[in-house]
Amino acid sequence: MKISHLLPMALLAILLVSCNDSRATGEKGQKTVIKMHKNHWANGAQLVISVSMQFETGGQPDRAESPFSGSPLPKGQPDLPAESWYRYGANEGIYRMLDLWRKYDIKVTSHVVGTAAQKYPEIARAIAKDGHEIAAHGIAWDNQWNKNYADELTFVKDGVDMVEKITGQRAVGYNCNWLRRSPNTLKVLQELGFLYHIDDLSRDEPFITKVNGKKFVVMPYTLRNNDIVQIAGNHWSPDQFLSQLKHEFDQLYAEGAEKRRMMSISFHDRIGGTPAMVHAMEEFIQYTKEKTNVVYMRKDDIAKMVIHDPKTLVDNSEEQYNN
Amino acid sequence: MKISHLLPMALLAILLVSCNDSRATGEKGQKTVIKMHKNHWANGAQLVISVSMQFETGGQPDRAESPFSGSPLPKGQPDLPAESWYRYGANEGIYRMLDLWRKYDIKVTSHVVGTAAQKYPEIARAIAKDGHEIAAHGIAWDNQWNKNYADELTFVKDGVDMVEKITGQRAVGYNCNWLRRSPNTLKVLQELGFLYHIDDLSRDEPFITKVNGKKFVVMPYTLRNNDIVQIAGNHWSPDQFLSQLKHEFDQLYAEGAEKRRMMSISFHDRIGGTPAMVHAMEEFIQYTKEKTNVVYMRKDDIAKMVIHDPKTLVDNSEEQYNN
Amino acid sequence: MKISHLLPMALLAILLVSCNDSRATGEKGQKTVIKMHKNHWANGAQLVISVSMQFETGGQPDRAESPFSGSPLPKGQPDLPAESWYRYGANEGIYRMLDLWRKYDIKVTSHVVGTAAQKYPEIARAIAKDGHEIAAHGIAWDNQWNKNYADELTFVKDGVDMVEKITGQRAVGYNCNWLRRSPNTLKVLQELGFLYHIDDLSRDEPFITKVNGKKFVVMPYTLRNNDIVQIAGNHWSPDQFLSQLKHEFDQLYAEGAEKRRMMSISFHDRIGGTPAMVHAMEEFIQYTKEKTNVVYMRKDDIAKMVIHDPKTLVDNSEEQYNN
Amino acid sequence: MKISHLLPMALLAILLVSCNDSRATGEKGQKTVIKMHKNHWANGAQLVISVSMQFETGGQPDRAESPFSGSPLPKGQPDLPAESWYRYGANEGIYRMLDLWRKYDIKVTSHVVGTAAQKYPEIARAIAKDGHEIAAHGIAWDNQWNKNYADELTFVKDGVDMVEKITGQRAVGYNCNWLRRSPNTLKVLQELGFLYHIDDLSRDEPFITKVNGKKFVVMPYTLRNNDIVQIAGNHWSPDQFLSQLKHEFDQLYAEGAEKRRMMSISFHDRIGGTPAMVHAMEEFIQYTKEKTNVVYMRKDDIAKMVIHDPKTLVDNSEEQYNN
Repeated sequence: MKISHLLPMALLAILLVSCNDSRATGEKGQKTVIKMHKNHWANGAQLVISVSMQFETGGQPDRAESPFSGSPLPKGQPDLPAESWYRYGANEGIYRMLDLWRKYDIKVTSHVVGTAAQKYPEIARAIAKDGHEIAAHGIAWDNQWNKNYADELTFVKDGVDMVEKITGQRAVGYNCNWLRRSPNTLKVLQELGFLYHIDDLSRDEPFITKVNGKKFVVMPYTLRNNDIVQIAGNHWSPDQFLSQLKHEFDQLYAEGAEKRRMMSISFHDRIGGTPAMVHAMEEFIQYTKEKTNVVYMRKDDIAKMVIHDPKTLVDNSEEQYNN
Repeated sequence: MKISHLLPMALLAILLVSCNDSRATGEKGQKTVIKMHKNHWANGAQLVISVSMQFETGGQPDRAESPFSGSPLPKGQPDLPAESWYRYGANEGIYRMLDLWRKYDIKVTSHVVGTAAQKYPEIARAIAKDGHEIAAHGIAWDNQWNKNYADELTFVKDGVDMVEKITGQRAVGYNCNWLRRSPNTLKVLQELGFLYHIDDLSRDEPFITKVNGKKFVVMPYTLRNNDIVQIAGNHWSPDQFLSQLKHEFDQLYAEGAEKRRMMSISFHDRIGGTPAMVHAMEEFIQYTKEKTNVVYMRKDDIAKMVIHDPKTLVDNSEEQYNN
Repeated sequence: MKISHLLPMALLAILLVSCNDSRATGEKGQKTVIKMHKNHWANGAQLVISVSMQFETGGQPDRAESPFSGSPLPKGQPDLPAESWYRYGANEGIYRMLDLWRKYDIKVTSHVVGTAAQKYPEIARAIAKDGHEIAAHGIAWDNQWNKNYADELTFVKDGVDMVEKITGQRAVGYNCNWLRRSPNTLKVLQELGFLYHIDDLSRDEPFITKVNGKKFVVMPYTLRNNDIVQIAGNHWSPDQFLSQLKHEFDQLYAEGAEKRRMMSISFHDRIGGTPAMVHAMEEFIQYTKEKTNVVYMRKDDIAKMVIHDPKTLVDNSEEQYNN
Repeated sequence: MKISHLLPMALLAILLVSCNDSRATGEKGQKTVIKMHKNHWANGAQLVISVSMQFETGGQPDRAESPFSGSPLPKGQPDLPAESWYRYGANEGIYRMLDLWRKYDIKVTSHVVGTAAQKYPEIARAIAKDGHEIAAHGIAWDNQWNKNYADELTFVKDGVDMVEKITGQRAVGYNCNWLRRSPNTLKVLQELGFLYHIDDLSRDEPFITKVNGKKFVVMPYTLRNNDIVQIAGNHWSPDQFLSQLKHEFDQLYAEGAEKRRMMSISFHDRIGGTPAMVHAMEEFIQYTKEKTNVVYMRKDDIAKMVIHDPKTLVDNSEEQYNN
């Protein structure tokens, strides 16, 4: 099933489902009886998968984490192999992933560090040109949780402005450095017109939370299907990562017959963009395409689809911070 | 073989075994010769499997271990993604596991931290309602080994009382924080009317130890088949965990033909309750069901089955502490 | 091919090989042409495998390494789950391994800590009774590299005496705590009448080194096929361990056609004696039995076989210490 | 396809490609249509693979990293098992790998530490005699990034001279200790007549950079397919390493149809030279030989092939240091 043709079929599915909630006859003349899932998502998907492709290379600070940072050089001494390791993300990683998404007509969300786009504007533009979402990731690769309200607002806004100037896209989604928000982050984002953030691990589906009294979408991010956690941090091999993705997909897809389910995957330029990881990801994509009604989506499209949907969960667990 | 139908068949097996210790004829008219195991367990099981489903989320202290705790924030600064990671156990983890146990009609033992049940009473009730054992895990997620007798008794009793008030079940089994008991723990438990504890790794079968001169059951726990040890601590991928379970099962099941054998498995809300882990566990359950006389049981039922069985081992290795 | 029948067949092989170095006719009437390897080992083996089954439990010092030792309790506070984890080696581990060796008629070398045998004499006797080699591992689980000559000699001799008193076997082979010898260790062993030691990782075959001018056998030990290194230390899963064994076996067996090759495997009571590891080991044994001329041997038998064999390598890399 | 016969066939391929860029008829009389890749490499390869076989044993400093170095002995105390672990590289590791390369007629690049060749001249000569490239790796196993220009030049030159005296080969390629160059390294190498260095991780193909105004080749090295990183550092098992190699190969080979691609693999005497790793590598070689136009090459041959090829990328990312 070609993913680009899914939406009309999904509409059909919704129509069919409204007639017969658990089973529906397929196309006319066909006797096959198709078990339909309920339309937990407005687009009829049984599972929505969203990939984050983080573009950070070029924005890393001095002595940033790398395979060499466990044994740091003295300050001021350039760590040349570490720097070359980062450049890989720009030279090979992003382009290799773009080729993969193009081959399968998948649109992803790219969280772009402002200074990374400044250093490599042609890469930021290449991502945008292929139809991917440009989302925000701060002006710099730096802590955000320790900033006061005004400084945090500047930090976020500068990043959005920088990347918009380069790509023409204004971000509506946010990802903090190492997911670590301050208690003010959601208010800052709400003030700046953001639609959603991803620094939450509490559910396998997006939900609404109230910020300054208005709806704000929380999009599930992932440590489990995250290359920087599992490959760079936990030293998994790509076959372990692939196996993790398949186990997670099988479970969430099955659950998707009964409720709204979303799977989040994260790739970083210099880690997920390596040959073995992209090859593993291609195997995973092929694996998911054997199932019907699997939809890969940008997070802004997901946010827009759910924000006014009455079936979307509301969760105000952090309301103490958001008013 | 449906597990819920096992007990009568096991009784039949015992009868057959008593006629012919090593081989028995199967159903009438069938020429297949079935090799029968001896009845090492009173219910005729060749292997008893018991799952612990720890419910701790909501009871974690500030700066509790999480994927973020290796790089702690300053005291007083909320670690928002870490907290969201914990909430996953309550939002998704426990319910996903409950669905799995229900699908295969498996009853498990849930060790419930008192403050977790207080924070999420609906979850504690959902566990109890499905027929699972509610066991105790302290009033709080806190060290127990460093308390004096009176304080430890209060710590345990408060937890039992809290969870009983919420679920209606009074715990008879105990699990200490990180298994770390004080020298008084078993006396405290005996005084409070407990039947068994699980903080022992010394055998692959339950045994009796004397506490204050009375029988007390020690139920084997596990680090080997424990999600918090292997997934969170040792960074295994779910396929490694599944392979570990299968290797262990194959060995213990084979040994079960010759002696009493029990397999212990441990899942924690936010770790084992993830999609990939529940999917791996489902594969394991299906794997075990290809063999006959595999019985999944709650630990209180196991304790009651063995405490007066003369075949149960007696082991007083810790008698210096228990009188 | 039953291993216990190998030796006579190996002798036959040697006769045949002496007639025709590369090929020989099999049994009379059979047209199969068997490719014979040269007799690099006196017993005609193509590969000699030797298992070390370390018996240490009961001899561990306070706060010994365990899954709990990363977060040690204050001195004087008993670490009860850690102690129960050690007891597993005595209650289950050694007996489970003995069952495996018996099933396949494999004789292993057991390095026994003196105080472990003292604590569990019935286990030391069970090992000896099954025909396994009782080798020495010090009187206590303690550093040996930091002792002076006299103290080291006492440390070794006390261990040998203790274990001999219990099992009736006098050790001729030695293994230091964590392999760490002092510069005097080989002289101490030579003075005490030892035939070999195993604390060397430099070759895949035993060799002779001169100590006090006399021949002393150095038996290759292993970190690669060592449960304490790979399972307890590196957190491998049992399937990784099994895969490592198979890769190593395949390579060494192939090399065994051209030169003398030995494979060393190490299991510790509480680690290798777990169900999954013993199950993995059984799979490995079955894997090796599909090949001809694979011989499992005790290390003392290997040492006796090679010490006067002129084909045995001589390596005096450490001669600065041994005269 | 025998690799040694590849070059003429590759020339044929180039001819065919020049006639028909995307498809070409195979051998006369055969109707099979072969999809030809463009000639991104002058020798017609679709993928160039280059193996580094580091020879360092004997050159390691006191207390060098080993499986024992996490718990170092006091200074002056010899760590005898660690030293024996290093000797393995000289006794077994290099010779085992040489056998493998010979069996498949693969020529590799061996980066040789000067003092390692001094300690084991027969090994350095054996490598050279088999037709492998002798490349430089410093006179000693020591930091290079912290030396001034003159000291660094002496450090490099002494190593080259030493190894040339022993093997008769003058190195034209360089590898720094742990890849860590000083800002002067490339200028030092250029002054000493080197053709290329490998301490760069930024691309999957070699490129040209200007040093002192002249062309200098930068050859991609690897952490991903590097035994010291993945096996010794990250504790992968050999099957993980093999799987990583296959995933990476599949991806780069596919990309090689569209652009110039090179795969780098690194083995160290005492780590990659173990039985299981050599066996895994043999499986990988066999895997790659199922594909056409895969060429294993020495890095000096690659450098010579690309340095004057106008299709070779030019990248002056580090020009601030190189003028």
